[in-house]
Amino acid sequence: MHKVVTVDLEKDILSENRRIAEENKKHLEDHGVVSFDFLGAIGSGKTLIIEKLVEILKAKGKRAAAIAGDVSGDDDYQRFVAHGIPAANVNTGKECHLDAHLVDHALEDLPLDSIDYLFIENVGNLVCPVDFPLGSHKRVVVISVTEGDDMVRKHPAIFAFSDVILINKIDLAKAMEVDPKILERDARRTNPGAKIILMDARHGVGLEELVKALEL
Amino acid sequence: MHKVVTVDLEKDILSENRRIAEENKKHLEDHGVVSFDFLGAIGSGKTLIIEKLVEILKAKGKRAAAIAGDVSGDDDYQRFVAHGIPAANVNTGKECHLDAHLVDHALEDLPLDSIDYLFIENVGNLVCPVDFPLGSHKRVVVISVTEGDDMVRKHPAIFAFSDVILINKIDLAKAMEVDPKILERDARRTNPGAKIILMDARHGVGLEELVKALEL
Repeated sequence: MHKVVTVDLEKDILSENRRIAEENKKHLEDHGVVSFDFLGAIGSGKTLIIEKLVEILKAKGKRAAAIAGDVSGDDDYQRFVAHGIPAANVNTGKECHLDAHLVDHALEDLPLDSIDYLFIENVGNLVCPVDFPLGSHKRVVVISVTEGDDMVRKHPAIFAFSDVILINKIDLAKAMEVDPKILERDARRTNPGAKIILMDARHGVGLEELVKALEL
Repeated sequence: MHKVVTVDLEKDILSENRRIAEENKKHLEDHGVVSFDFLGAIGSGKTLIIEKLVEILKAKGKRAAAIAGDVSGDDDYQRFVAHGIPAANVNTGKECHLDAHLVDHALEDLPLDSIDYLFIENVGNLVCPVDFPLGSHKRVVVISVTEGDDMVRKHPAIFAFSDVILINKIDLAKAMEVDPKILERDARRTNPGAKIILMDARHGVGLEELVKALEL
């Protein structure tokens, strides 16, 4: 009995989410905003990479905004604010992912007419966000070599779901005794169509390639 | 309407999980097995720490077994097998946590009468496992300095839920420009009763303290 209810309810939630995601995308396009959804484990470097992109866009005279998704707290939000861009903080409470409805609400708080790009930083993990598209134009998944060389094999779905795969912190590969080439190989097998970039965001390595991949 | 169904269903699932967790604990105690549930983000070092403990127990003539919980794959399971201990692999599919029922099944595959300790490695993230006790005797949460100094503030619930908090990879703190003392301070605020250990598991730092905390 319960099983049936759960399955039906889940289908319902997922299709409702997809519907709102499509609305979000159209809403953003109506305002001329291109958006990117950043996924990835805790501490993989999502916030830092978005900060770097914001600075690159500034130098080009382009305006960005960001949505910070976290279970709790406003650390990432404050980092975006410190970069002088419009930002919205979304705390999911107990949920391990953003959904299209939460993003819809966050869009209400952002000045869509005065921005060119929107970065959406999802809650940090490689499992939950997979079933919940948000309406962004491209999905970017970030992993770091400090997480070990088995990350892709452990979470194939999120890599299949993403357009760009960033393998970050390659400067720490030797200290961690992790070979980034293994992560790259597994990522390519899981999603042959994705753009894969080896990165050291802290020191600027791979950023130019990412700018090109996102057509910024 | 849907909202109501969801809430009731959730309560049902959680209380059913707690009931089975209590059964698991009793089942383990009936066989004289002490068990530990290892939580923590992807790549924080859970598997390596369990491997180190297994070797320490071996040297003391004690026998351990392990349950490897992952969304997909058997990397961690194979690591436990390589250490010559009985192990069970649990793939959760799309779920971002183990639950007591999955552990109950895994226990069927383990020779409980011939082991002293059971290590349960949960799916790697800091959000989902919070609502699902498994029946272990102590919960150990592992974070790493490579995840940034805001980890505790972002996920207070899992730190409040744990008996031992391990702050791992302190050897990389300088390279990551992260101060482990901030993580320690936040952890102590969130859970003043927990045992907090600064650790560099790869090089053996903090292991002795952990052995003491778990009374191995």
